Amino acid sequence: MMSTELGTTKPQLSNIEGLRRAVEESPFDAVVALSPHNFPYVAGCFVGTQTSVPLRLAMAIWCKGDDEPILLVCNIETPLVRRESWVKDIREYVEFKTSPIQALADILREKGLERGKIGVELTHLMACYYLELREWLPHAEIGTSEEVFNRVRAVKTPAEIALLARAADLTLRALLATYASSQEGDVERDLVSKLGANMLACGADSPAFLYMGCGPNAGVAHPPPSDYRLKQGDTIKTDCGALFSGYRSDVARTAVVGPPNDEQRRIWEALIKTHTDSIALVRAGNRACDVYNGTKAVAEKHGFPWMMPHQGHSIGIPTHERPILQPFEEWELVPNMCFCVETRVRWAGKTGYNVEDLVQVTEKGPIVHTRFFPGEWLFQI
Amino acid sequence: MMSTELGTTKPQLSNIEGLRRAVEESPFDAVVALSPHNFPYVAGCFVGTQTSVPLRLAMAIWCKGDDEPILLVCNIETPLVRRESWVKDIREYVEFKTSPIQALADILREKGLERGKIGVELTHLMACYYLELREWLPHAEIGTSEEVFNRVRAVKTPAEIALLARAADLTLRALLATYASSQEGDVERDLVSKLGANMLACGADSPAFLYMGCGPNAGVAHPPPSDYRLKQGDTIKTDCGALFSGYRSDVARTAVVGPPNDEQRRIWEALIKTHTDSIALVRAGNRACDVYNGTKAVAEKHGFPWMMPHQGHSIGIPTHERPILQPFEEWELVPNMCFCVETRVRWAGKTGYNVEDLVQVTEKGPIVHTRFFPGEWLFQI
Repeated sequence: MMSTELGTTKPQLSNIEGLRRAVEESPFDAVVALSPHNFPYVAGCFVGTQTSVPLRLAMAIWCKGDDEPILLVCNIETPLVRRESWVKDIREYVEFKTSPIQALADILREKGLERGKIGVELTHLMACYYLELREWLPHAEIGTSEEVFNRVRAVKTPAEIALLARAADLTLRALLATYASSQEGDVERDLVSKLGANMLACGADSPAFLYMGCGPNAGVAHPPPSDYRLKQGDTIKTDCGALFSGYRSDVARTAVVGPPNDEQRRIWEALIKTHTDSIALVRAGNRACDVYNGTKAVAEKHGFPWMMPHQGHSIGIPTHERPILQPFEEWELVPNMCFCVETRVRWAGKTGYNVEDLVQVTEKGPIVHTRFFPGEWLFQI
Repeated sequence: MMSTELGTTKPQLSNIEGLRRAVEESPFDAVVALSPHNFPYVAGCFVGTQTSVPLRLAMAIWCKGDDEPILLVCNIETPLVRRESWVKDIREYVEFKTSPIQALADILREKGLERGKIGVELTHLMACYYLELREWLPHAEIGTSEEVFNRVRAVKTPAEIALLARAADLTLRALLATYASSQEGDVERDLVSKLGANMLACGADSPAFLYMGCGPNAGVAHPPPSDYRLKQGDTIKTDCGALFSGYRSDVARTAVVGPPNDEQRRIWEALIKTHTDSIALVRAGNRACDVYNGTKAVAEKHGFPWMMPHQGHSIGIPTHERPILQPFEEWELVPNMCFCVETRVRWAGKTGYNVEDLVQVTEKGPIVHTRFFPGEWLFQI
């Protein structure tokens, strides 16, 4: 899926054999991938307009018994998909002239499935398209397909782990470079801009999100960049991510302007103890909810104020994907799942602290891929 | 909607009075804004996770007869929304514990609308949430609300026009700086990275998309960055956009490495003639489809190979919004609509050329906000 010199072989990131098996074992006659994460995972090719022009659908239709899916894309994207994808059967529709859903229904009818069981990503497909599909195929049974793909995507291939680890590491280096070159009096907006530029300099294809809350903005989860000027004693709570060959990073570290005071030290110490204990829970056999509930328990032990609805999430092509480390997520952790474990605390509109690491589940316990950040992590600028 | 020094007054970008009127004149008892463009337009506040965590809904519920909407957001985002929005009634739901749709249904029931006509953005709401809403409110009549908002958003306020013009101008300057510092032998991936950095240096909050097709990649609409090296005679077809205070830019220019040959000059001349004639069609009273069909006619006259399904689009918070300059779009152009007019040609996998400008409809004809690019626009590097 990585685009290198034109014409050279690309590394295979996706687990195509796992997908093939998942389609066979699914309750559907055909499953359709159409989200900006599942389509590229199946097709081995990123269509950027899936996010910028969401109604321009790109779909992979995989029928039970078939060795390969059929791709259906807007004709504007056909040359790219023909060049980049491993899939041979590529169909196209002309935007505004033919509805992508009509074209999908045509393919399903061609495959003899007008009365079939069709799995579609109902957590992504827009309601208008769902209603249209019901009209084109009134006798089909339409269910939700994302679990078929999500279960495969949740366990990362060695190539994916290498890419995710590199992405997280470089993003964190970009953040460190930003902190290291900042000081009292700097403007929040300029810090954000510098972080974005540092991500690009570190090899990201693009920044994905840049939340750097300075001073009172650290008390907001996702503050927009403002003209606030750094003062002595401020915390800077950064949560940021970038795009690397279609995959995402998501890391967080806190800095303080000048030497931390006693209260800041106390909060940070409790946060890091909680975080370290939380990472230790990311092991095969635990369920995702066990990590959440276990972290909640240790937070209380360490005197860390607990308030978060989730303690992290799997990461891959999207930023948040299942399993989510939340109290109702029953999925069991298995080796080569990769999680962003994020521990944070905020006092609304006042201040906040956070830390987030990329953690891989292995047979022998968690591997933290984002360990290099110096000192005790409460970076002093 | 622009975040400046904390606590200072923010300029009002949205047309709130127009929204209020649109809600009153709509066929619905309540309309719900929930897309990453309509929610911030109504609320006056950007919630970044609307795009990075799409299932974490943020909604504005505006009931007929009410002077203001009610906002409903995930509790993680409440401090931001309380600080940034002009709306007073802000409700929250706890992610994973309560479904955002259940919380929406509660509010609609509280407003006495369990049998009401509810307008929801069906071009954005996920099918799973639509089906859930039907279950929570089985007696409500659910229709599609986006036209209520889209009609208001399509006509830009003076503050929006100033922001869009600045965004387009700075993005184009970033592209020019990138071309001006590039040469034969440079790697496509590095050009992309430099363009992103130049956008940030020019004041963008983040790059949004960076398509720089070099050589054969110019024959692809949206190529991912590759290791291709620029050769003499290559074209570079760039289509790029950035984020400025939540609004988007989208501009395009082509460059050639070394002096253009006769064929390149011929293609470019026909493209520019077609583009200039196309812009002249962007005037009040024409319908969007008239611009498309008229451009198709002049392209044939100028010997320019015509192949595109649309000739541009309105721009604002999203990159593509209605009206789209496509053959079936009947909306009439009115003053202060703003369009990205894009003229392009590609020979799949071989080469391509494009140009895209920000054009404002006025009573006295089109204003092009992106005129400064030097020479005849086929930039020679």
